[in-house]
Amino acid sequence: MNDSGSVGIVSTQTVRLFTADDPLVLASGATLGPIDVAFETYGTLSPNADNAVMILHALTGDAHAAGWHEGARRPGWWDNLIGPGKPLDTDRFFVVCANLLGGCQGTTGPSSVNPATGRLYGLDFPVLAMSDFVAVHRALVRHLGITRLLAALGGSLGGMQVLEWSLTYPEELANALIIAASSRLTAQNIAFSAVARRAIMTDPNFHEGRYSEAGVIPNGGLSIARMMAHITYLSEEALSEKFGRNPHPDAGKPGFGIDFAVESYLSYQGNAFLERFDALSYLYLTRVMDYFDPFEHPTASVARVQAHPLRFLVISFATDWRFSSMHSRRIVRRLVNAGQPVSFREIPSTWGHDSFLLEIESYHATVRAFLDRALEEGTR
Amino acid sequence: MNDSGSVGIVSTQTVRLFTADDPLVLASGATLGPIDVAFETYGTLSPNADNAVMILHALTGDAHAAGWHEGARRPGWWDNLIGPGKPLDTDRFFVVCANLLGGCQGTTGPSSVNPATGRLYGLDFPVLAMSDFVAVHRALVRHLGITRLLAALGGSLGGMQVLEWSLTYPEELANALIIAASSRLTAQNIAFSAVARRAIMTDPNFHEGRYSEAGVIPNGGLSIARMMAHITYLSEEALSEKFGRNPHPDAGKPGFGIDFAVESYLSYQGNAFLERFDALSYLYLTRVMDYFDPFEHPTASVARVQAHPLRFLVISFATDWRFSSMHSRRIVRRLVNAGQPVSFREIPSTWGHDSFLLEIESYHATVRAFLDRALEEGTR
Repeated sequence: MNDSGSVGIVSTQTVRLFTADDPLVLASGATLGPIDVAFETYGTLSPNADNAVMILHALTGDAHAAGWHEGARRPGWWDNLIGPGKPLDTDRFFVVCANLLGGCQGTTGPSSVNPATGRLYGLDFPVLAMSDFVAVHRALVRHLGITRLLAALGGSLGGMQVLEWSLTYPEELANALIIAASSRLTAQNIAFSAVARRAIMTDPNFHEGRYSEAGVIPNGGLSIARMMAHITYLSEEALSEKFGRNPHPDAGKPGFGIDFAVESYLSYQGNAFLERFDALSYLYLTRVMDYFDPFEHPTASVARVQAHPLRFLVISFATDWRFSSMHSRRIVRRLVNAGQPVSFREIPSTWGHDSFLLEIESYHATVRAFLDRALEEGTR
Repeated sequence: MNDSGSVGIVSTQTVRLFTADDPLVLASGATLGPIDVAFETYGTLSPNADNAVMILHALTGDAHAAGWHEGARRPGWWDNLIGPGKPLDTDRFFVVCANLLGGCQGTTGPSSVNPATGRLYGLDFPVLAMSDFVAVHRALVRHLGITRLLAALGGSLGGMQVLEWSLTYPEELANALIIAASSRLTAQNIAFSAVARRAIMTDPNFHEGRYSEAGVIPNGGLSIARMMAHITYLSEEALSEKFGRNPHPDAGKPGFGIDFAVESYLSYQGNAFLERFDALSYLYLTRVMDYFDPFEHPTASVARVQAHPLRFLVISFATDWRFSSMHSRRIVRRLVNAGQPVSFREIPSTWGHDSFLLEIESYHATVRAFLDRALEEGTR
């Protein structure tokens, strides 16, 4: 498979970036090692290593952002954005995407085996912070021979990682694209995640996090979590347009099965999720989002970026109610107050939070223009 | 307890309105009997029986709308609206509130015993429709010697019952107050209920609906359902105002327990619900809401009310996102198109869907004015 515009066949690599003897010191003070990191790259790093763009993925994303795994039925999750001639043009940019720390797609996480005990970590895995994600991504970037990224970009939790990185190590980024993200979850955001975690942890198959040892997964709770979250990823308009009140084609008399098309869709989403995501990772990653609040003490948090300004692009989507434009505007306000050059675009999309994954013309044009300018100006 | 403005000590009565030999024929064609109905009344029915106001309750409400049960720590759920001198003034109105069919607070429902088998119904209980709720309420009204109600009013599912009644038996109502309701759930509304039902039905304690016989309740699933629903009953602003990102006072280091105040609140709501609500009723009542769509064929649905016009008041709350003002405006539009006299008020409240339960000055003033006029004009 080598469509025009596709990066073609790719595979995920893994690298050990921290070891038991040389562990990562986490924000909490705990140490963690070894840490293996799964990542993919697309395009070619320039001789001066000044064309690297790092993709940070969202809650349930992974390192496979673009191209096709051998034999796969669908490409990477951001394939519409990344490839030859696409906004993130792999003929010009060197693109890196890594599964984040605590994840379940190749990078060390709570369902990894703890070499010290020979058992999986489970809930003994240390609680993480946004800065821990960034610490691991930074180690990967150094490993790849990159001193300064031309840009980092990400949507949702990915955008939160970009924000964290740009505030704490601004000298390592020339440009930051923060898409459909938040600098501070609201009580409602936290509440949805709390219910999701509760669904997982009260599933009898959870076994205090040792479900793998019991040969089961908390599939009931995990699919409930996913179904609920999925509702929040789409706008009410989008769900109405897609499904309305249409009956499910197989529905018989009214009952408690799948009577409406939207129920079938959600059920499918909940079940498909079980095959690709881990319940413990869901707990750990959502908790990082809950606690993230980099502007809690605005003066301190912007001091570094004031000394090392970079260029920001913040994008929100008009019908996103998971992280509404209000969240993005707050990020913009804080950055502008810190004297940073910030562009902001609210994209008129009907699709809600998940818009950041879609090929929306004005959105892709905005990203393309920003990245083109980034390349022109270089890493300085 | 006999506060000024309180109807004082009250108790719930029960009456058998249908029997096994003289059952109710449901919308589905199935029959159901016996049907016992739990209800309360406040105030005194006038000699002409022309001052009766029927309250229809919401999904998790009950017959105890006002006053105090002996020894109770809190009054009925709409006590702020009902009592001497209150908008629904029990010195002038005779107020009736009944637990609805399929409920779990004294009226026959899926966790009642089926006298034909001696076992509880469980999922053998017939699927219900909005018109079945109304059929039982109508039987109660006749039992109380009332031919025509001065008004029916209700919020949320209660308002949906008022709408159904007013369209199907308009000659039995002089006035209809439809508050924070919908004539047609959206895909998003259905989706939230679908996830709630799935949480209940996949709880291992559900036992195909025969949990009572197993001596358990599907408490995990039922509390998840309630917690999720509760998020949708409050506006994002309300949750932010009430809880923001405040830590729970007992929270220690970050983990997967109750770290934030909003998590504690939700957890409390989820647990408290287990003591007062039944999982099977949750399934049955939410499904009725999903299917309700009285204007699906507008010409037919308004024919009766065109022949027997009544006066409508439709109220929505500005921050309600469960049933946004869009839902209320649709009801108004349909009724206006049918030539009905309709008043509409969108109340500026920050509290979201649950506003209909709160003592909000402009809201109560609107209800009071409408009911005062209703009394002046009488049942004609």
